[in-house]
Amino acid sequence: MTYEAGTYDVIVIGAGHAGVEAAYASAKRGANTLMLSLNLDMIAFMPCNPSVGGPAKGVVVREIDALGGLMGRVIDKTHIQMRMLNTGKGPAVRALRAQADKPLYVQEMKRLLENETNLTMRQGMVNELLIENGECKGVITETKAVYRAKAVVITTGTFMRGRVIIGDLSYESGPNNQRASVKLSEHLEQLGFELVRFKTGTPPRVNSHTIDYSKTEIQPGDEEPRAFSYETTEFITDQIPCWLTYTNEFTHKIIDENLGLSAMYSGMIKGTGPRYCPSIEDKVVRFNDKPRHQIFLEPEGRNTEEVYVQGLSTSLPEFVQHDMVRSIAGLENAEIMRAGYAIEYDAVVPTQLWPTLETKKIPGLFTAGQINGTSGYEEAAGQGIMAGINAASKALDKESVILDRSQAYIGVLIDDLVTKGTNEPYRLLTSRAEYRLLLRHDNADLRLTDIGYDIGLISEERYERFQEKKRLIEEEKKRLQKETVKPDDHVLSIMEEAGAARLKEPTKAYELLRRPEIKYDMIERITAPEKDLPMDVKEQVEIQVKYQGYIEKSNQQVDRMKKMEDKKIPEDIDYDAIGGIATEAREKLKKVRPLSVGQASRISGVNPADVSILLVYIEQGNIAKVSNE
Amino acid sequence: MTYEAGTYDVIVIGAGHAGVEAAYASAKRGANTLMLSLNLDMIAFMPCNPSVGGPAKGVVVREIDALGGLMGRVIDKTHIQMRMLNTGKGPAVRALRAQADKPLYVQEMKRLLENETNLTMRQGMVNELLIENGECKGVITETKAVYRAKAVVITTGTFMRGRVIIGDLSYESGPNNQRASVKLSEHLEQLGFELVRFKTGTPPRVNSHTIDYSKTEIQPGDEEPRAFSYETTEFITDQIPCWLTYTNEFTHKIIDENLGLSAMYSGMIKGTGPRYCPSIEDKVVRFNDKPRHQIFLEPEGRNTEEVYVQGLSTSLPEFVQHDMVRSIAGLENAEIMRAGYAIEYDAVVPTQLWPTLETKKIPGLFTAGQINGTSGYEEAAGQGIMAGINAASKALDKESVILDRSQAYIGVLIDDLVTKGTNEPYRLLTSRAEYRLLLRHDNADLRLTDIGYDIGLISEERYERFQEKKRLIEEEKKRLQKETVKPDDHVLSIMEEAGAARLKEPTKAYELLRRPEIKYDMIERITAPEKDLPMDVKEQVEIQVKYQGYIEKSNQQVDRMKKMEDKKIPEDIDYDAIGGIATEAREKLKKVRPLSVGQASRISGVNPADVSILLVYIEQGNIAKVSNE
Ligand SMILES: Cc1cc2nc3c(=O)[nH]c(=O)nc-3n(C[C@H](O)[C@H](O)[C@H](O)COP(=O)(O)OP(=O)(O)OC[C@H]3O[C@@H](n4cnc5c(N)ncnc54)[C@H](O)[C@@H]3O)c2cc1C
Ligand SMILES: Cc1cc2nc3c(=O)[nH]c(=O)nc-3n(C[C@H](O)[C@H](O)[C@H](O)COP(=O)(O)OP(=O)(O)OC[C@H]3O[C@@H](n4cnc5c(N)ncnc54)[C@H](O)[C@@H]3O)c2cc1C
Repeated sequence: MTYEAGTYDVIVIGAGHAGVEAAYASAKRGANTLMLSLNLDMIAFMPCNPSVGGPAKGVVVREIDALGGLMGRVIDKTHIQMRMLNTGKGPAVRALRAQADKPLYVQEMKRLLENETNLTMRQGMVNELLIENGECKGVITETKAVYRAKAVVITTGTFMRGRVIIGDLSYESGPNNQRASVKLSEHLEQLGFELVRFKTGTPPRVNSHTIDYSKTEIQPGDEEPRAFSYETTEFITDQIPCWLTYTNEFTHKIIDENLGLSAMYSGMIKGTGPRYCPSIEDKVVRFNDKPRHQIFLEPEGRNTEEVYVQGLSTSLPEFVQHDMVRSIAGLENAEIMRAGYAIEYDAVVPTQLWPTLETKKIPGLFTAGQINGTSGYEEAAGQGIMAGINAASKALDKESVILDRSQAYIGVLIDDLVTKGTNEPYRLLTSRAEYRLLLRHDNADLRLTDIGYDIGLISEERYERFQEKKRLIEEEKKRLQKETVKPDDHVLSIMEEAGAARLKEPTKAYELLRRPEIKYDMIERITAPEKDLPMDVKEQVEIQVKYQGYIEKSNQQVDRMKKMEDKKIPEDIDYDAIGGIATEAREKLKKVRPLSVGQASRISGVNPADVSILLVYIEQGNIAKVSNE
Repeated sequence: MTYEAGTYDVIVIGAGHAGVEAAYASAKRGANTLMLSLNLDMIAFMPCNPSVGGPAKGVVVREIDALGGLMGRVIDKTHIQMRMLNTGKGPAVRALRAQADKPLYVQEMKRLLENETNLTMRQGMVNELLIENGECKGVITETKAVYRAKAVVITTGTFMRGRVIIGDLSYESGPNNQRASVKLSEHLEQLGFELVRFKTGTPPRVNSHTIDYSKTEIQPGDEEPRAFSYETTEFITDQIPCWLTYTNEFTHKIIDENLGLSAMYSGMIKGTGPRYCPSIEDKVVRFNDKPRHQIFLEPEGRNTEEVYVQGLSTSLPEFVQHDMVRSIAGLENAEIMRAGYAIEYDAVVPTQLWPTLETKKIPGLFTAGQINGTSGYEEAAGQGIMAGINAASKALDKESVILDRSQAYIGVLIDDLVTKGTNEPYRLLTSRAEYRLLLRHDNADLRLTDIGYDIGLISEERYERFQEKKRLIEEEKKRLQKETVKPDDHVLSIMEEAGAARLKEPTKAYELLRRPEIKYDMIERITAPEKDLPMDVKEQVEIQVKYQGYIEKSNQQVDRMKKMEDKKIPEDIDYDAIGGIATEAREKLKKVRPLSVGQASRISGVNPADVSILLVYIEQGNIAKVSNE
């Protein structure tokens, strides 16, 4: 017999990286929120690499922070090392990456959530959804608790009918030997959801004392203090290095010889793995001309000697893992503490979702994170915050929030998922973003803080600071446009020092800064603002001025895109009634049900000719409507 | 196909409170040791109360520390509060009790073990033992790894065919939703071990923010800094309080009305529960005249808002737990974060063990901890260290170590287990120790440091400090015996202040201290030693002098006991050949196979008459042997 366990606005199932952001965002928006998970000791647990950020992913962390989410703040407080990647390259590919202290990350995340007023956190296994009149109205747990709500977000990660696989050993399990979530997966299937089977894997961990670091290369953190979050004011200064080593021909020989025993190649694993986080056996097979692969040795935290062997993800049998590890320079005597393993799980085919992450089939039901076919903590968290925002919107009758492809990597991610679907665990890459020059690490706040503030996730105080920053940037750009620089001795010597072409006649400081060799600090030496500006303002001014041309071009593309995006497709459109569309395109359109012509145009199988026909059809409809009125 | 994964001296299966002490002791003794456990994130995890110590248990922690073990050092570093209990009573019942920071405790324990040279720590599920010629020679894991060793210690706690039960929900699981250990349990049965089914339970946890502390009584830690370990020199000063509240008639009514739904009363639970850690439903039924029971609200750590509701252990359905919790003063609006649950598991009948904790059936195989039918972290740890010491003895061909009942609570615990067995989860109580005046909290070091040093667990430096302490105690006692106190004004005023009878004639300081009202600090004011003595030396002098009479009496009893203990029973004794012994006694003797007449006399069912006959028989045998020579 079930019992009534409480009524909430929003219920979040799961407390992984997606779940915590969803629950927090929902609670912060003002929705009375319940978060259920299998184990409260594993809140936002990292079952794989001890790191956050990196190309594209790092930008997502900043975007989450700009929207008011948690990930950035928590990693800022619990990292052991932080580095800005690609500092030598343009601002579009720069990215921050932090090594996490895994246990601390969990503790800090849990603590923040426990202290959130609108949020109730409870251990529990959800077995079923409560469906009334075709809408999702709550959940039922294995203890027969019925929790009611106006919106439910599922963020169950790799737990859905999870199976752990090592060589020929396979058993039902969630990640890190937690319980698998079996009934909920069956239930989703019964409700008519299309599921796919994906897999992912993790490498062995070794004891630091058994590593000979002298045979590896040190990878220290940056000396300059850095942070993901725009709220962080205290920086961690005692950083811990990582170490770099390589596989070699002998390693590859061991793998080659035992390939038949790898669960991936023996046929044990049916699920599709992530192309961009391949297992070592995959790398050796696919890139068999490469004599070596990078292996990073990453500490799992400050108070543990466990070291994560990045690059060695595998489902080879344990005995092969020992040999493989010990074939690597520096690891000749390494003791494995945990063996690597693969995990297979069910994911929801994401084209079943609206861009709000609400499922099309069951209003009120949202899904976010690895369950939607992605891979990675940041991808999960990015979806989580949006699902949380939109579930709260639904529950509180507020407007939903959809980020478009020019606004955020999160927008790209979700649009890709719901529009194109994915037939392998989806990972964010800079190459997926056509407007990546706009979706920079440095301007996430400028892109998204307004939204975060509007929906109640950004505090007044922070918002004021943000506006002040914006004001200073504009002011300084204006000043540089007014200020004329004359080619006097001082100026000429600075320019010569920079290796820039000789200035011949008086020029606006703004134009000077656009020259590739000229940095903002040189301009400052020539003509300083009245008050010294904060570092991030200077950085922003430099980037905006220097890349003005590219940015403007991108913005024009965005405008064109927006026009297509603004051409909304009526929800009740009957694709069968539109003559001339190719059959494949028609089927895809009926499945994805794009909200705009823009979205329609990105569906694979929908060709420009189909888009034109669709456009004409919709515009005629609109004309018809106008003439009907 | 299995593979050879390595050869060690000792293998410890499990990394709970027993396993960590066993592995550490074994490694410290010099044995090359492997410790296997299901989850390296859960090393020495506390699945139940966040506390260490208390009556009898606290003494065990000190004994472990005196032997060189870990528990004391780790709790000293990771507690949130510490209190000396029963300070108003005699030294025999004083006990230290600490509230633990659960996640920190796990981290610190893991860190210490990772840094131990002779110890390899690995995640793995042991499914089988390797038995050769009837002896245990290693283990086989689920990944088919064969680890060989000269001795194996099983410390698998409550994982053996574990089943979690809440109301009518029941599923296979270890504690805290970890994997159950099924195959190893079946394997032990196949090997012919007698197993019993026990159960234990844990209460719900609630969110601190939802507690109204104004309706409860504060329970602060002691102001005076305290420590379990004789090595601790830094003390935690920022303590966190616990809180006391009570159940009431309404609570009891809720329980009464739902008793039929409790897994314990519905017949769902077959295992026997711990009498001395009863569930709340048990307390309400067994003590139905009591109008209320104490409920302590104990924080689970510094960085979490989870609060453990001590006293409310239960297997009632979740919905009853909500009502029950909210019926209690201060908890009217409490939000449960995790529901309480019971767990059923297999235990080994401990009379199948020698006092070394080696199994009689399979030489080389040891068992320790909850698997031996005990309950409690300290009981597990106390057995763990002894099993580790003796497994290393076995592997390194050194002498085994058995503590007798007058040496340590650990001796009482193990003797009780192997001699009397237990038909419920066994818990240490001061009443179980007949020499409790000798087994004090304050003198654990004096009792056991020599042993710890002899077996290599105590460092030279610590041993020197210990010997200096002993020397100072003896010196000061001698000085007090020499020093004569005259009844001058100064002395008389001090005695009057103390409320002691007037001193009439010159008396030795030693005799003065024996008077109940006189404390050592008064003696000090009358006649101070040349150099001020450390606190613990003063305390020891006072106790030894004050309780000299009782201590001497106890020692005489011990001498008598020792005589019986010294009467060894030959291992090949044929009980069937001894005429006159009662049938029940004969069966019990054959089962327990006591090592001495002393041990035989403690077997329940063996009466004094049987003991006399046994004594005569053995002495005749000895006489026979002597005359044969
Ligand atoms: C072995 C392994 C290797 C990986 N390797 C990589 C990699 O190389 N690169 C990479 O980018 N990513 C990797 N990942 C993926 C990464 O861990 C995930 O992308 C990320 O953790 C997903 O976050 P999530 O919030 O979607 O789900 P999770 O973090 O998995 O969290 C799921 C949550 O749901 C809860 N839950 C599940 N079922 C229920 C239920 N029925 N009721 C209530 N609660 C439930 C769980 O308790 C948990 O809190 C790997 C994951 C695993 C397990
Ligand atoms: C729900 C619950 C309530 C409790 N309530 C109380 C109480 O009220 N009072 C009290 O005093 N005590 C209580 N306890 C008991 C206390 O937790 C235990 O006594 C103590 O933890 C036992 O320590 P241990 O080392 O024997 O086993 P555990 O701490 O259980 O550790 C067992 C170890 O063995 C490992 N393991 C298991 N099987 C295998 C395998 N096949 N291969 C490799 N490794 C394996 C596990 O990973 C783990 O590391 C409770 C326990 C539970 C679970």
